[in-house]
Amino acid sequence: MNHTEVLTRYTANFVDELNVNGITDVVISPGSRSTPLALTMAEHKGIKEWIIIDERSAAFFALGIAKQTKRPVALVCTSGTAAANYFPAIVEAHYSRVPLVVLTADRPHELRDVGAPQAIEQIKLYGDYVKWFQEMAIPEATPEMLRFSRSKAARSVYMAQEGNSGPVHVNFPFREPLSPDFSLENMWGEASEQSYMPAFDGKKRLDSEQLIQLIEKLKSKQKGIIVCGPQTDADFAEAVTSLASHWGLPILADPLSQVRSGQHHKDNVIEGYDAILRNEAVREKMKPDFIIRFGAMPVSKPYLFYVKEHMAVLQFVVENHTGYREPVGNTTEFIFADSVMLCKDLIETEPVLNFEKDWLDEWKRMNLISKKHLLGGSEENITEGEAVRALMEVIPDSSGLYVGNSMAVRDVDTFFMTTPKNISILANRGANGIDGMVSSGLGAASSGEPMTLLLGDLSFFHDMNGLLAAKHYNLNITILIVNNNGGGIFSFLPQAKDGRHFEALFGTPADVDFKHAVMMYGGEYAHAATEDELKEVLDKSYQHKGLSVVEVKTDRTANADWHRKKWKQIENEILNSGD
Amino acid sequence: MNHTEVLTRYTANFVDELNVNGITDVVISPGSRSTPLALTMAEHKGIKEWIIIDERSAAFFALGIAKQTKRPVALVCTSGTAAANYFPAIVEAHYSRVPLVVLTADRPHELRDVGAPQAIEQIKLYGDYVKWFQEMAIPEATPEMLRFSRSKAARSVYMAQEGNSGPVHVNFPFREPLSPDFSLENMWGEASEQSYMPAFDGKKRLDSEQLIQLIEKLKSKQKGIIVCGPQTDADFAEAVTSLASHWGLPILADPLSQVRSGQHHKDNVIEGYDAILRNEAVREKMKPDFIIRFGAMPVSKPYLFYVKEHMAVLQFVVENHTGYREPVGNTTEFIFADSVMLCKDLIETEPVLNFEKDWLDEWKRMNLISKKHLLGGSEENITEGEAVRALMEVIPDSSGLYVGNSMAVRDVDTFFMTTPKNISILANRGANGIDGMVSSGLGAASSGEPMTLLLGDLSFFHDMNGLLAAKHYNLNITILIVNNNGGGIFSFLPQAKDGRHFEALFGTPADVDFKHAVMMYGGEYAHAATEDELKEVLDKSYQHKGLSVVEVKTDRTANADWHRKKWKQIENEILNSGD
Repeated sequence: MNHTEVLTRYTANFVDELNVNGITDVVISPGSRSTPLALTMAEHKGIKEWIIIDERSAAFFALGIAKQTKRPVALVCTSGTAAANYFPAIVEAHYSRVPLVVLTADRPHELRDVGAPQAIEQIKLYGDYVKWFQEMAIPEATPEMLRFSRSKAARSVYMAQEGNSGPVHVNFPFREPLSPDFSLENMWGEASEQSYMPAFDGKKRLDSEQLIQLIEKLKSKQKGIIVCGPQTDADFAEAVTSLASHWGLPILADPLSQVRSGQHHKDNVIEGYDAILRNEAVREKMKPDFIIRFGAMPVSKPYLFYVKEHMAVLQFVVENHTGYREPVGNTTEFIFADSVMLCKDLIETEPVLNFEKDWLDEWKRMNLISKKHLLGGSEENITEGEAVRALMEVIPDSSGLYVGNSMAVRDVDTFFMTTPKNISILANRGANGIDGMVSSGLGAASSGEPMTLLLGDLSFFHDMNGLLAAKHYNLNITILIVNNNGGGIFSFLPQAKDGRHFEALFGTPADVDFKHAVMMYGGEYAHAATEDELKEVLDKSYQHKGLSVVEVKTDRTANADWHRKKWKQIENEILNSGD
Repeated sequence: MNHTEVLTRYTANFVDELNVNGITDVVISPGSRSTPLALTMAEHKGIKEWIIIDERSAAFFALGIAKQTKRPVALVCTSGTAAANYFPAIVEAHYSRVPLVVLTADRPHELRDVGAPQAIEQIKLYGDYVKWFQEMAIPEATPEMLRFSRSKAARSVYMAQEGNSGPVHVNFPFREPLSPDFSLENMWGEASEQSYMPAFDGKKRLDSEQLIQLIEKLKSKQKGIIVCGPQTDADFAEAVTSLASHWGLPILADPLSQVRSGQHHKDNVIEGYDAILRNEAVREKMKPDFIIRFGAMPVSKPYLFYVKEHMAVLQFVVENHTGYREPVGNTTEFIFADSVMLCKDLIETEPVLNFEKDWLDEWKRMNLISKKHLLGGSEENITEGEAVRALMEVIPDSSGLYVGNSMAVRDVDTFFMTTPKNISILANRGANGIDGMVSSGLGAASSGEPMTLLLGDLSFFHDMNGLLAAKHYNLNITILIVNNNGGGIFSFLPQAKDGRHFEALFGTPADVDFKHAVMMYGGEYAHAATEDELKEVLDKSYQHKGLSVVEVKTDRTANADWHRKKWKQIENEILNSGD
């Protein structure tokens, strides 16, 4: 077999095996050394290739697809700094447990570490951030090496999803010439419907003894709270709300938990806890005697203060596989078991627990007060909070919302009230960066589900290159930019009092007219100055199929003031009414 | 001492010591956790802070300053993916030996690996890509710890420049509250003019015995060539051309060697070797009997073929410190000694070598033929080569040229003829990426030297965010974009024959109207369709103080054809005339 035939069969077997194991999307960035993989991916009928020039954006785009579809996505790039550009998204995928199969092309061994062009050290390039790393062999096409190729492909997809999902990295040395020959007979090799690593993968489940022990610990308690952090299992909301109903407990549901929206019963869902817990006296009064938290910590800072002030309270943290997501130091017992199964099992374990009704009622009362004030009133010039409030009102049923970090996710926490609408909420809360948001949102949008991306001006600027994908693939998305001309979140921090240097260092106004960017990428641009105007403009954007960017300009000081005013109103009414 | 005082003194001592050791520029990206460093840098009168939102651009901007000034530059960012965004520029700095002092703020230890927000593992984040890594202590301000702080600062600057320069990484855990107090008495501490790590750092030099041995090896030779790869020592051009004159040898000077431009005698400089060596018969005829290469391999592919076809020829590769930059496998002896000193020492070592005059004359004859054809003729629609030709003609004396990778640097290789103009040429040839070019060019421009950035459309797109620095700091630069709507270099590769998939995967047209981007950043935009028009437009841009972007649209196929036509003309005349 000549070089080209060996190259073709080796690569084709790998690519086909990825597809047999569930890979249907690959994001490719242009390059020469990656030709074998890129062309073979394009040739494979079961895999859709997305071509994205900027590798940093490409990796976040893949992350967005993977978060949306909950399935692994592949990435292909050439050797050199191209691969280094993947690092931010890989870090995010690591911490938010998203399966990515990163395939980097490399110079062959004889061109490494000798000053050859575009050759960098790529072995373990991403260190501990990937779950699994494999250096592939120089292509060979003996039956054994084709089995090797398929085996690594199958295992890469499996490892990306084993236990807590995450990124894996496979590095491919290729020698020139790099073009495959697709005219070869039986190029795809010995594929079958069956993966090279077939597996029945079980879920963790507590046995009856463990369940009884758990119930035993809760028997004497009265004031429990169920806390739901960010998660994306579609069955979880139904399961956890059933448990909460069964036990009569309040659920503090983070906006990213998927618990605030959907058809499940939400009577026990207390979405206003961020505002409620801002007051120290309230936090004291509402001291719980146990906490069951599913998933990571909620974004809410007041919730953090709440648990900090009640360190000795018995807390259970549930992880589907494993993990140590307990940043406060609370007395914690971990439960490593599938969340959905756990809820069902707890419901069915005797004896049935019966908790104090007043406790839940008080949470509900405070929640109503909170919602009333947050949803009422209107400022002359739209504030950030009002922008998000408007969005939550008009966002279509059966659509997705990708939320940026910094102020965006905090405002969604405040204004995302329980709703029967099916809204799936995604975010990059692994590392909470402001990078890659446009690409992440577009990756999620590529699935076809109507998608809204909510973010600040700095985040929008950081990944403006990501807009090219919208143009190139005519993706349908509404991007709502809340522009406070800089790092708005810093206005809330102590540093804000530092007049000197503050504006330059923390205000960081981008001072850029985004309209030009939107035009460059063939999108529709609109601006809104009031809440009503915004609702109108958003509605219109949802009718438009393609890239729609809606911008709201807010004032940082006005935002901070408005938030504080609302919290004060809520606090006053909570403390001065009721018991 | 309270927390804030400790934080302030600890950080101020570190920052001041950086400045004592020569740091005058720092590039800061906005964030909260990096507040202590950012504010203190801004407060220090000896350090200029550049605020750049996008960390990837920020790192390349710092790289540009460092390449231009040949002095270390500091970087400051917050914890999380912000730090991961530095990776591409760090990889480039590693391979092209550029001193960067990377300072990343981090969560304190108790917030690491526990699911705390925006906390990622930053210990040895960049692996082997940094020369030195230090994890700082939580701030303390005892006399010993202030000395610790200063010592690490001094050493970080030293290590970035020790031997082959490169990036270093210092990680700072900070606890809240994060604001320093600049009202403190004697905040900057026990500074002195003297560094905490004062050192007389010697250069490598061969002794007389080694020099005699070296000369001995060359005594029987007749057909030597001196090859100059990319380098930036300002004294090198004078030294190597003196040596070449002394010995009567041709110099094959890469465009990035600084040897083609300046006031030194350039009679022996053969800049046309890329075109000359395209023909196999010429490569055979011009077989050398020894090669002395200073620095890395030249960019020229024909030169690569040339040395590949003469593997057994005695070759010396000179490195100022150490390194292994020999990617071909030629018989090589390394000389680890300062290049400038080596040239001077060789000139003064007896006996004086005397080489065959015909050899040098033949190189000069071929060089004249090459130049004649390359500089002659004109196409109706401007080609890439003509665009670069025009640029080299009008580029001002005493200015800099930052060259992009891919086609840009290859065209400069072809068209950058020897000139008495003082033109310094910079590039990112460590890893040859298409990333970070706009920021690199602007970083170099920030020094005040008139700067031109030459790059392709994909490279311009990749770092369009970099333009914000031009707007924010009103930097003066002329950016010449040679737009062939995609990956032009791929047109020269075998893959180009692959009709199916080619356009999508290798053409990768960005299909974006850059005019919008330029307007968004307040720059002047111009387009040129002919060579004369381009010269006019470039001249105008050099009058304009600020961001000027000049775009030339070319056709990939026409480019490839034009290049091939020129090479054929040169080859024909070389082979059919002379001996």
